[in-house]
Order: sequence, then structure tokens, then C-alpha cells
Amino acid sequence: MVEMRKPIAVTEAIERVVAHVKTTGTEKVALGEAYGRILAEPILAKHDMPPFERSPYDGFAIRSQDSIGASGENRKAFTVIDHIGAGQSAKRGIAEFEAVRIMTGAPIPDNADAVVMLEQTVETATGFTLRKPFTSGENISARGEEAKNGEELIKSGSFIHPGTIGLLATFGYAKVFVAKKPIVGILSTGTELLEVEDELTPGKIRNSNGPMIAAQLVRMGLTTRSYGMLADDLDMCMETVKQALCETDVLITTGGVSVGDFDYLPAVYDRLGADVLFNKVAMRPGSVTTVAIAEGKHLFGLSGNPSACFTGFELFVRPVLLKMMGSENMYLPYAKAVLGEDFTKANPFTRFVRAIYESTLDGAIVRPAGFNKSSAVSSIARGNSIIVLPGGTRGFTAGMDVDVLLLGVDEGVDKWML
Amino acid sequence: MVEMRKPIAVTEAIERVVAHVKTTGTEKVALGEAYGRILAEPILAKHDMPPFERSPYDGFAIRSQDSIGASGENRKAFTVIDHIGAGQSAKRGIAEFEAVRIMTGAPIPDNADAVVMLEQTVETATGFTLRKPFTSGENISARGEEAKNGEELIKSGSFIHPGTIGLLATFGYAKVFVAKKPIVGILSTGTELLEVEDELTPGKIRNSNGPMIAAQLVRMGLTTRSYGMLADDLDMCMETVKQALCETDVLITTGGVSVGDFDYLPAVYDRLGADVLFNKVAMRPGSVTTVAIAEGKHLFGLSGNPSACFTGFELFVRPVLLKMMGSENMYLPYAKAVLGEDFTKANPFTRFVRAIYESTLDGAIVRPAGFNKSSAVSSIARGNSIIVLPGGTRGFTAGMDVDVLLLGVDEGVDKWML
Repeated sequence: MVEMRKPIAVTEAIERVVAHVKTTGTEKVALGEAYGRILAEPILAKHDMPPFERSPYDGFAIRSQDSIGASGENRKAFTVIDHIGAGQSAKRGIAEFEAVRIMTGAPIPDNADAVVMLEQTVETATGFTLRKPFTSGENISARGEEAKNGEELIKSGSFIHPGTIGLLATFGYAKVFVAKKPIVGILSTGTELLEVEDELTPGKIRNSNGPMIAAQLVRMGLTTRSYGMLADDLDMCMETVKQALCETDVLITTGGVSVGDFDYLPAVYDRLGADVLFNKVAMRPGSVTTVAIAEGKHLFGLSGNPSACFTGFELFVRPVLLKMMGSENMYLPYAKAVLGEDFTKANPFTRFVRAIYESTLDGAIVRPAGFNKSSAVSSIARGNSIIVLPGGTRGFTAGMDVDVLLLGVDEGVDKWML
Repeated sequence: MVEMRKPIAVTEAIERVVAHVKTTGTEKVALGEAYGRILAEPILAKHDMPPFERSPYDGFAIRSQDSIGASGENRKAFTVIDHIGAGQSAKRGIAEFEAVRIMTGAPIPDNADAVVMLEQTVETATGFTLRKPFTSGENISARGEEAKNGEELIKSGSFIHPGTIGLLATFGYAKVFVAKKPIVGILSTGTELLEVEDELTPGKIRNSNGPMIAAQLVRMGLTTRSYGMLADDLDMCMETVKQALCETDVLITTGGVSVGDFDYLPAVYDRLGADVLFNKVAMRPGSVTTVAIAEGKHLFGLSGNPSACFTGFELFVRPVLLKMMGSENMYLPYAKAVLGEDFTKANPFTRFVRAIYESTLDGAIVRPAGFNKSSAVSSIARGNSIIVLPGGTRGFTAGMDVDVLLLGVDEGVDKWML
């Protein structure tokens, strides 16, 4: 007799997996190693930015009061007493009708309170003349105009991208607190599996899920502890899973979670006394995806079918790993797009279709990425997104608006949109 | 007298930089190292996929001809002679009214041509009975239904993402030809610059562009050869640029490209006899961005202003590096979005505004990411996108549709959309 499982909705499944996540702790890394990590401290302005009054243009620093009354008929003459570039300082403050030639980024000399742009002056033997008055503060970048000392600029939990690195450098964060990376194990199960370098033999296929998941983890900046491949054998599975539970924070298995005669993961969860959060999700592909908690650790039992495995990782594993690292932006980014071709097969379960999303001047369009069974792997390779089609009795036709989840975007969003 | 430069349009500037790009050549890497690289060979199906007829379900393999005439009143009885899971093969082919219990992924036994799902059967002592006929091929995954031996599945020049890795693994690509990574040098110039770990001193700021660009390169999977920081000094600049030209494929400098009294890069290009593609672009920020070719290599002279530097990299450096690696998808992905707040300052030049893009169920919205001068760095850290506002005399108000370029997406698009 085949076991009957009760499917739960995708949204509920996601809520269950992210409900009890323990964070990984923090560590300090050099700025040069921080790209792609998750901030474990907010970025604070450690001083005003700019840290001093400076010139945003090439020009002359003057006292604005000396320009009062200047006009075409009443030109005011200034003597240039110094010449400074960025990183230099004037030798002394300026006095009445004195000026300093100043380049972009250089600090405003003492007593000066305006900058005259080069094109607003007429050169003389000792300086220049002006024909219009300037106001105090004109053409000056004020100290602290971008950020004030102590201000929180980026919150803890944010993804560190190149702009974040620039900001950290600005404020002298030579080292920065980031979330520790969780240790993630991968175990591929299935008597049919060969290694990538093996020749095909009858009835066998190469293990594509293991390398694929490893790459999904690399895309998240994470590394993998591989537990290789196992034939469908309960005792061997049990032993390896127990070992992995000691050595990893999260274990991902592929295969063995269905109700077939050689699917041993349910028995492994049982022997471990694991808390099975669900073992059937109302989704295609991947309805047999199972998630359990043992010793406080997530055990992700992904389907052995490549498309189902891929989708299960992105929907369930990714948010848990991100939340472990303190990120709130743990869900795949959402887009709405026009369906580019008919997709008429109706299905009672929510469908996740590997797809090619393209944004054009006329709007966004999305098309299924080809061969669409749960065993497919070519459509995962062609796709950059996943179309999400709600379950029900109807098909979908070209021109309809559909929901899309985008893949390969560095930082996600803080809400599951569907 | 200040040199007058003639600005060219952004689109023309991009056309000029990508016009004469030499590719980097190829190398072979292990599959485990291939994520994030650019394919230098197409992915071919090395065999039919699936490589053999197999069962997509748990069930029984039968000869469909034995089910002819089956009905509720005329049940057909089958004897189960074997029991196979994925990776196993039946000991012999089936004869009349025989069946093999078969699990998902297992090869169809000889003589069988249909699979009956478990729930369509009633168990008997030696097998099961059926009450409906099956057609030849029913519930069978045909050999080659996903891909035929020799078929090109993914073209050369594609970005290798996790789905690509899965496909490479499927077809036994234990090693794969990828584009060699270009060697990219970074040289930060400016007398005002301090190292990240330095204490601030009067008139100085820390070098944020160097670390930021290094991270922009890491985001592209590339590493950096750093030439450190130089004060504004023509001879020192000249010497370092000459050295870098020998050691790198591409050199990025920051600062020193304007028309200020201490901007020495134009003189360096002159002494090198470099072909200056442009030294003024009708864009804000980054109008002084200069690109030259010397000894067949691109010299990118980015502005020292962080926002200008960042934008110049994404618009000009990124496509060149991708094209060097054989990618056609060298431009930032495009999106259209509703402007979330007024942006009333008009400007004759095209503006690139660091922004926060968000896609919601009600559509996509984009907002400027705060303080918006070209010297800004906090808005780069807050942003995940760039709003592109055409130059002209008008401002832009909340609710208008605007063009957006998305940052942090793994693979771009093959057309510059603007």
C-alpha cells in the first residue's frame, strides 16, 4: 500500500522552514574579503562626510563679502595668493580681496566662504576680476552634507555589494563584522547515479544534482561539504546522515524522499526522531520535497528530479541559509511579465516553470525555457527565472500577466510575494 | 585657459569602447571551478537524454497489448516477475501477462511498452489486475525526449550558472572550456587619498574607489592587480601606467582625468601616443570619463568622484570585459519602472541616478537612493539600480515611467537599450 501524504501550500511550507532558524554568529573579515558577505553590524558614518568644507569645482575660493556690488561696470579684482589641489591645504587664510586657486576636492581655505568657477572670471596679471556677486556658501560642499558623524547609513543584515565596499572604505572599515557562513552538506542518493567523469552504463545517469546544488551554494557565496553519492540503502544513508549532522549546520539530500520502494529518507527521518515539517507540497515539480529538523538542524530532502531539486533549493533552502546569516532579504526577487507563449496544461498544484525572462522597452516578457518535465535539466540551464502559475483547472495563454521569480540576482527581497 | 572638450552621447561612447575588443583566449577548468565563468564551447548533448526509456512514475511495466479490452467487468490479471528501482535492470524481458514492479527513473524492461501507475491497480497474490487498457508508450519517458545525441543545448559565450553546471554534469563534462579571465589593473590617483586603515588628516579622504572597483570586478568573477595609490604627479603616473600596460590586459585608473591643474592622465595618454576614444561624455555623473587605447589595450580613465567612478565602470568597463570573454550579454539588464518621487532638477546631459528598484504585485517602482552629488558614496551603497533620465530641460515627477538599469544580476543582455 502506498503511503498517502497530505500536501500543504507552498506559502505555508516556506513559513514552516523559516520559522525556526538559528543564526550562525559573526566574524571579522578584511574589507578585501567582504564582497558577497552579509553585514553583521550597521555601517555608521565614523565622521562627517565630507569631513571638511571642500570645493566641488575647479575655481577660486574667495570671501563672498568682497564680491558685493560686483557687476559688468564695477568689476572686483582679486589677488591669487595660493594654488591648491585635492589633498593640499592653503598655506594661510585669505584676507580682503585675496583668493586661492582651488581644484575639485580641495579644502576651502580659512576665511573663504564661496567658490568662483574658472569660467566666471577674467584673468589679470596677479589674479582675476569678477562681474557678479557671490553668496556665502555658494559652490561649496558643506562638511557633513552627505552624512553626519554617527549616522547609521546601512543596516546590519544587508548584502555587501561593491557600493557597500566603497562606503566601508570611506569610513575606514579595514575590517568588518559579517555573518559566519553556515556549513552546508550535500548528499546525493540513488542507485542510478554515476560520477560526472564516468561512462554511461545501462539504466544509469550521471549525478547532476550534486554539482548543481554546489553551484547554487557558490552563487550564494557558500562552500559545500560533499558527502558524495550513496546507493538506495537505508543503513548506509542513516550512517552518513548521522555523520553529516555532526559536521554541518544544514544537510541537503537529493533523491529518496518519495513513496517508492527504495526511497529511504522517510525512514531515516523516522529513526533520527526528526520533526518532519512537511513531506508533500502542492507544487510541480517538487511535490515530494521534504524538510525535517533534527538536533535543531534543517534536513532538506530534495527530489532527485533535477528541475524539482533546483526549485526546492531556491524556494526552501535559500531563505533558510540567508536567514541564518541575518539577512531579511531572503526571498527571490519578484517580477510581473507577459507570458510569451501558451501554457495550456492545467494542474491542481502551483507550477514553477523554468523560464527565460526578458525586459524590453515595451515591457517584460517571459517564456518557458523548453522541455518541461520534472526530470528536465536543459530548461534549468536555459532559464534565468521561474514562472509561477497558480494551481487550478485553467491553462494560461500568451499575453496573460504572470508572476515570475528572478534567479541570479545578488540580493533578494524581504517578502514572499505569492 | 581651460581646455574645451566636446561631449559625445553615452550610446556613442559605449559603441566606441566595445568596437575593438580582443578576446582573452580559452582554458579548460574542472566542473567544480566553472561557476561564474563564460563558456568557450557550446554544450552538446553527448548522448540522448534520457539515455534509455524509463519510468516517470512508480508503477508496473506491462505490454500494452495485454491490456486490450480491460474494463471493470473484464479485469486483466498480471503476474509480477521482478521489482526494480532506478539504477537497476530487470533480469529478463516480460512475456504475455507479465509485469515488472518499477520505480521512478528505472529503465523499461524489454518487451514492456507502458507503465501502469500503482493507484490504477488492484493487488493480487501474485501481482495485480487492471480495469482499463493502456496504449503503447503510455507513462513512459522516451529515450531522447529531452535532448537528442549531438544537439546543441547552450551556446558558447553563455554565463555558467548552477543550471548550466547541472547540464554539464549530465553530459559528463568533468572539465569544460571557458574564457580566460582578463588581468585587470587598478590605479587610484589623487594627492588627497589615504589608505582605508589610515586616520583622517586635514584635507584628505580615504580611497574608496580602489576597493569599490575591486569588488565590481569580484562581482564579475574577476581578480585585480592593484597598482595602489599615487599622488597627482605626472612622472610617477607615467611610469606606473607604462608598467601596468606590460602586466595587464586592461587598466582602470581613477581620478586625474578632468581639466584641473593637477589632472595628469590626459598628459599620460598623450605621452603614450594612446588613441583617446573620448574624454567627455554627455552624462552626469562621470562626464569627464576618458577611454583610450594604447598597445591595443583599453585604458579606462574613470572620474575620482565615487558615483561617477562606479557608473563609469558599469557602463563602459563591464561590457568590454565581458566581450573580451566572448559574452554577447554584456550590457546591464533593463527594466521600466514608475518613479517613486519627484526628481525636478533638469540637466542637459543624460543622468544616471543611483536608485532603489523594487518590483511589487502592483508593478515596479524606483526611487533615488539619497544624496545625489557625483561625490556621493552612500547612495551607491543603498542602491541596487540606476535610473536613467534623458537630458533636456524638463524635470521628472513621481508617477512617470522611467528607464532603469539593474545591478547585481549575474548575466546581462545583448542590447544596450537606451
